[in-house]
Amino acid sequence: MIFETIVTTRSPSGAVHIAPMGIREERDLLVLAPFKPSTTLENVLSTGYAVVNYSDDVRIFAGCLTGRRDWPLTPADRIPGVRLVAALAHAELQLLHAEDDPLRPRLHCRRVHLQNHRPFRGFNRAQAAVLEAAILVSRLHLLPREKIEAEVKYLSIAVEKTAGPAEREAWGWLMEAIAVHDARQAERPV
Amino acid sequence: MIFETIVTTRSPSGAVHIAPMGIREERDLLVLAPFKPSTTLENVLSTGYAVVNYSDDVRIFAGCLTGRRDWPLTPADRIPGVRLVAALAHAELQLLHAEDDPLRPRLHCRRVHLQNHRPFRGFNRAQAAVLEAAILVSRLHLLPREKIEAEVKYLSIAVEKTAGPAEREAWGWLMEAIAVHDARQAERPV
Repeated sequence: MIFETIVTTRSPSGAVHIAPMGIREERDLLVLAPFKPSTTLENVLSTGYAVVNYSDDVRIFAGCLTGRRDWPLTPADRIPGVRLVAALAHAELQLLHAEDDPLRPRLHCRRVHLQNHRPFRGFNRAQAAVLEAAILVSRLHLLPREKIEAEVKYLSIAVEKTAGPAEREAWGWLMEAIAVHDARQAERPV
Repeated sequence: MIFETIVTTRSPSGAVHIAPMGIREERDLLVLAPFKPSTTLENVLSTGYAVVNYSDDVRIFAGCLTGRRDWPLTPADRIPGVRLVAALAHAELQLLHAEDDPLRPRLHCRRVHLQNHRPFRGFNRAQAAVLEAAILVSRLHLLPREKIEAEVKYLSIAVEKTAGPAEREAWGWLMEAIAVHDARQAERPV
């Protein structure tokens, strides 16, 4: 089972990195599988720590994909690291062992601490649609124009019907990214 | 903004009713809009109380749509009523005023109590897909065969990639309901 979360890490010199990431729970462990190369991978390997933020603010997911990585942070409780202020809950992780892979090494982590900050508010269909659109945007270069258009059309229904201001803003950033991609494609020499 | 939740109510004689419901937050109030006629509507109008369960167990959403309404309950804290044991959080509501409507009366409720039980675990794409499929199943009689097929095909990708056992079970119940609907359509005299 894969959960979409936001992982916050720090470099040995303290620089914070924020990245959306799908994580797996395997027995008592959490498994992160960041791409190689990536800042998250480097940071966890060099410091041994990561924070998993369970947030329902889809602006952070869409924002990280569209160059908006400046989200309010606060120190972690038990490990050297930071968490998102917007997290409904967060887990502080310590790396147990790294399983190497040419594409996506698997970082098996122990949960040192889990904190529940704010209640889950129920499922929101627009949040799920923004998340699907974010995945689409991360794969724009791989997908045919018609598939992108059809998915956006389908997902936009839930956004129109159920979004709040945060979901609308996140959706707008993603649609902008698709428009920029389209414009670049159009400019390509044939 | 609309959140998909499970509403638990009781009749004046104490019979419990469980129903999935999209609810709106309007300033400090929660607004339920159950269909007319419905057990939830009758129960809230006659008792003045309801519990909103914020659950990420999609089996309850899919189960209520497919005749599986027997989910573990426990008494509410501040109002006469019950909540789902599976709720990550729950709110206990008191009816302030009912706005009548021929189709969906609006029940404006005050939140008497909000309790946070377990942490949000992050977004799971399969959970969102099950929810979309549940909405599809609730509208089977209104939708053309091709639209149902196309949506199921699209949604099944997230289920295959990210589901856990609960999501697979819920998905199975919904696919069964679609198969039963198809069989009935096929049996209709031309």
